[in-house]
Amino acid sequence: MKVVFFGDVVGETGREVLREAIPKIKSLYQPDFIIANGENAAGGNGITPKITYEFLRLGIDVITLGDHAWDQKEIVSFIQDEPRLLRPINYPPETPGEGYIIVKGNGKKLAVLCAIGRTFMIPQTDNPFLISKKIITELHKETPCIFVDFHAEATSEKIAFGRFLDGSVSAVVGTHTHVQTADETIFPGGTAYITDVGFCGAHDSVIGREIGPIIYRYTTLLPTKFVLATNNPKANGIFVEIEEQSGKALKIERIQLSFNLS
Amino acid sequence: MKVVFFGDVVGETGREVLREAIPKIKSLYQPDFIIANGENAAGGNGITPKITYEFLRLGIDVITLGDHAWDQKEIVSFIQDEPRLLRPINYPPETPGEGYIIVKGNGKKLAVLCAIGRTFMIPQTDNPFLISKKIITELHKETPCIFVDFHAEATSEKIAFGRFLDGSVSAVVGTHTHVQTADETIFPGGTAYITDVGFCGAHDSVIGREIGPIIYRYTTLLPTKFVLATNNPKANGIFVEIEEQSGKALKIERIQLSFNLS
Amino acid sequence: MKVVFFGDVVGETGREVLREAIPKIKSLYQPDFIIANGENAAGGNGITPKITYEFLRLGIDVITLGDHAWDQKEIVSFIQDEPRLLRPINYPPETPGEGYIIVKGNGKKLAVLCAIGRTFMIPQTDNPFLISKKIITELHKETPCIFVDFHAEATSEKIAFGRFLDGSVSAVVGTHTHVQTADETIFPGGTAYITDVGFCGAHDSVIGREIGPIIYRYTTLLPTKFVLATNNPKANGIFVEIEEQSGKALKIERIQLSFNLS
Amino acid sequence: MKVVFFGDVVGETGREVLREAIPKIKSLYQPDFIIANGENAAGGNGITPKITYEFLRLGIDVITLGDHAWDQKEIVSFIQDEPRLLRPINYPPETPGEGYIIVKGNGKKLAVLCAIGRTFMIPQTDNPFLISKKIITELHKETPCIFVDFHAEATSEKIAFGRFLDGSVSAVVGTHTHVQTADETIFPGGTAYITDVGFCGAHDSVIGREIGPIIYRYTTLLPTKFVLATNNPKANGIFVEIEEQSGKALKIERIQLSFNLS
Ligand SMILES: [Fe+2]
Ligand SMILES: [Fe+2]
Ligand SMILES: [Fe+2]
Ligand SMILES: [Fe+2]
Ligand SMILES: [Fe+2]
Ligand SMILES: [Fe+2]
Ligand SMILES: [Fe+2]
Ligand SMILES: [Fe+2]
Repeated sequence: MKVVFFGDVVGETGREVLREAIPKIKSLYQPDFIIANGENAAGGNGITPKITYEFLRLGIDVITLGDHAWDQKEIVSFIQDEPRLLRPINYPPETPGEGYIIVKGNGKKLAVLCAIGRTFMIPQTDNPFLISKKIITELHKETPCIFVDFHAEATSEKIAFGRFLDGSVSAVVGTHTHVQTADETIFPGGTAYITDVGFCGAHDSVIGREIGPIIYRYTTLLPTKFVLATNNPKANGIFVEIEEQSGKALKIERIQLSFNLS
Repeated sequence: MKVVFFGDVVGETGREVLREAIPKIKSLYQPDFIIANGENAAGGNGITPKITYEFLRLGIDVITLGDHAWDQKEIVSFIQDEPRLLRPINYPPETPGEGYIIVKGNGKKLAVLCAIGRTFMIPQTDNPFLISKKIITELHKETPCIFVDFHAEATSEKIAFGRFLDGSVSAVVGTHTHVQTADETIFPGGTAYITDVGFCGAHDSVIGREIGPIIYRYTTLLPTKFVLATNNPKANGIFVEIEEQSGKALKIERIQLSFNLS
Repeated sequence: MKVVFFGDVVGETGREVLREAIPKIKSLYQPDFIIANGENAAGGNGITPKITYEFLRLGIDVITLGDHAWDQKEIVSFIQDEPRLLRPINYPPETPGEGYIIVKGNGKKLAVLCAIGRTFMIPQTDNPFLISKKIITELHKETPCIFVDFHAEATSEKIAFGRFLDGSVSAVVGTHTHVQTADETIFPGGTAYITDVGFCGAHDSVIGREIGPIIYRYTTLLPTKFVLATNNPKANGIFVEIEEQSGKALKIERIQLSFNLS
Repeated sequence: MKVVFFGDVVGETGREVLREAIPKIKSLYQPDFIIANGENAAGGNGITPKITYEFLRLGIDVITLGDHAWDQKEIVSFIQDEPRLLRPINYPPETPGEGYIIVKGNGKKLAVLCAIGRTFMIPQTDNPFLISKKIITELHKETPCIFVDFHAEATSEKIAFGRFLDGSVSAVVGTHTHVQTADETIFPGGTAYITDVGFCGAHDSVIGREIGPIIYRYTTLLPTKFVLATNNPKANGIFVEIEEQSGKALKIERIQLSFNLS
């Protein structure tokens, strides 16, 4: 089974990048499933129902979210009706939405789970290790192929989480820092891992935003309006090949595609 | 001018890796200067005078530090006598040690500066942007070739810092997260940049430490003794080529070397 | 029912203060139950089995803990055998120890619960609001008289927690900041509340520690050995009177006692 | 010399409270100078030029600010023209506005200084200890009577700061947590001190805001619109009497006034 995952899609440029990238990765990788983190799709802040449908129409099977999940208020009710839009699983049980889904296609079955870290993160969520493990044990009854987006800041928490799940899921890929790391590997238990996939959007930027206002803030500490950047559009993603019977990863490959939008 | 920089050297395994890596990179890159971040060289916590000399004997020209700078108490007085050991420049003015040095060799002159970030970092240091800029303006009177280690956690702060110094230094390389990033580039102003160089030490680990105790802590929140890992020793570094007259970067290349120590 | 609660007992001076304070408050308040937060009783860091017994012999009925709960390693196994020593309830379910107890005396029954906040706190615990509420609903089957120690930093989280439990417990008293607040009150639902009870120990200090090393750290950022202070011993506590049938608070009164130990 | 200082004035209710409180404290304390922290005066977020003038007309001599200093954008330019409006002194040197002022009245001279802490605080400011000390040494050439507002979260940082300045200023009063502490004292060097003065505004609230939305956020982690509360208006302040020749504090007294606005 072949899966492509795109890192945080940032704003309109990120969405344009996605439109260009999807046909390209389809021909390059023939993915059975495509997943994207959509937490910054709406102008950098969350996702709307409209953009959710745009993603789904493009061929994305599952959309994961992170600390920006709820930036657009309509999502709080919408997420209850759209199971392909996942919020991190370790929010309070009462919080709307789900943190996992099983998708089917080409006669294959993939579980996708989204969790969020706690070190240096603002939302005060519950233990991602224990909660994910519990659900994953359940998911194993349905399929050994499980793909996990761990949206977190600290490298130590992300690696620990990946190692913790090694052998019980097919892949743990990190998101949130918007910078792709060069540590993609397959752990001894068969779990593909990368600390961060990176992001889709304008790369002449500070993680997707215009450089000037960010520097202004760091040097004056005065408030500024953050504006999304548009130059140097790139798609950052990861390709994972999974052995269907066992759920073990066979291959992990970093994706960096540049585009000339105009 | 050719410079090789090694990311955080972690413990004895990291130092062994360095011993193996230096002859190898000398033959591969013919560096004029070698720099290494030594903040975790002494069992993961800081550096000792003895290890400092060990580094210098191996051919390292300058050692940078970070938030672990002062873990070994003897360093507080030792650093005043050893100008090749740099603590981050944005500590209080009264703090012992210096945050920059100009080194000479092969008829060449390189300034090295070390600063530390503030987002998600424990030491409450002063503004790295403003303080670094001021010193760099001074250093330009001596040489246009300036190499900066920015020891920081948040990708946004690191990229903003690199962009802020773009055009006024030859390279800004990040350290601290112990995970090499795949975003090495030369910014438009001629500054080579990477968000994190990674670390030198055992990579079957959580950023250099044994996996088991870290997972134990994340799942129980109970205290544990962190032990350094020894498996899968790797050197993470970066190679930068600089045009001497202008100080502009000509090339940046990631280094990942694996070793079989035994 | 009359209850006296002592804020964080810090080190040997704190324990001496307690020895002096208990007979005094017994004659002043005739408490049915005495509770103390013991998270700093052992030299500032956690509590030992020996000190636990010392507390119990002094007439303390229940000892609550906080982020320093596990500083002394022996406590991890000891806490499973000593139900009167409570660790915060919102640690992972597998963590040893319990976060509540029902104590009896003078024909009365009091439930004591200990929870820990998350804002600005190091241990990454689970939601204190939801977990406490669930247990409190259970405890109501046994007694309406419930006394809660909420060990937390941020005033907003503490007040929100108190207001959240207003009407379902007899008292919510804050600990952890070591500074007594002047906002003791009874909320409309009948819950006695104070943001922080303060601490028992040497008050010519920075929250129990010698002033000099702390200032040295703030001005140099260099490591220092923190030493416990001994001057100006004071006991900070709170007195709450509860109507037994309803569990409603009738009275809340701040306690500040000075001692001349020598 | 007699000085009254009011803690963070929150929104319209806070301003109404101030209107009622000022005549009352004038008759009770005959203050030579009145100071108020205005960082939450404009609907909870910062202060406007209009509200600044409103404060000055009420008889407030100096307005201090904190982390909310810049919430209202017009303040960035306005503060340069209004020296009685102070932003924390440890912002970058280039940041508009000043962090101290000397005011005169009744033949008396008082210096007022405003600094901001760093522990658990969002703005990444420079070292408040070292910067304040330097300015205070200068201010001593003008007057020994110096009143300091230290806007900070952590009790340890606040007490350390007060102890650090003990003997060189007349008073250090804390703000920011919006909860008045019961630790007012005069330190051995003659500096009056309190960890937090509290706030002026609606006290049936979570630090000035409506309780419901705050609890909703803590239990669901979903975004909510914070609304200012209006019930139980109170003024929290502090009265300090200073010996003019020496600048030593003679007296410190907590102020809590309740009002029935309607
Ligand atoms: Fe993101
Ligand atoms: Fe994120
Ligand atoms: Fe490090
Ligand atoms: Fe570090
Ligand atoms: Fe604590
Ligand atoms: Fe404590
Ligand atoms: Fe405030
Ligand atoms: Fe504030």
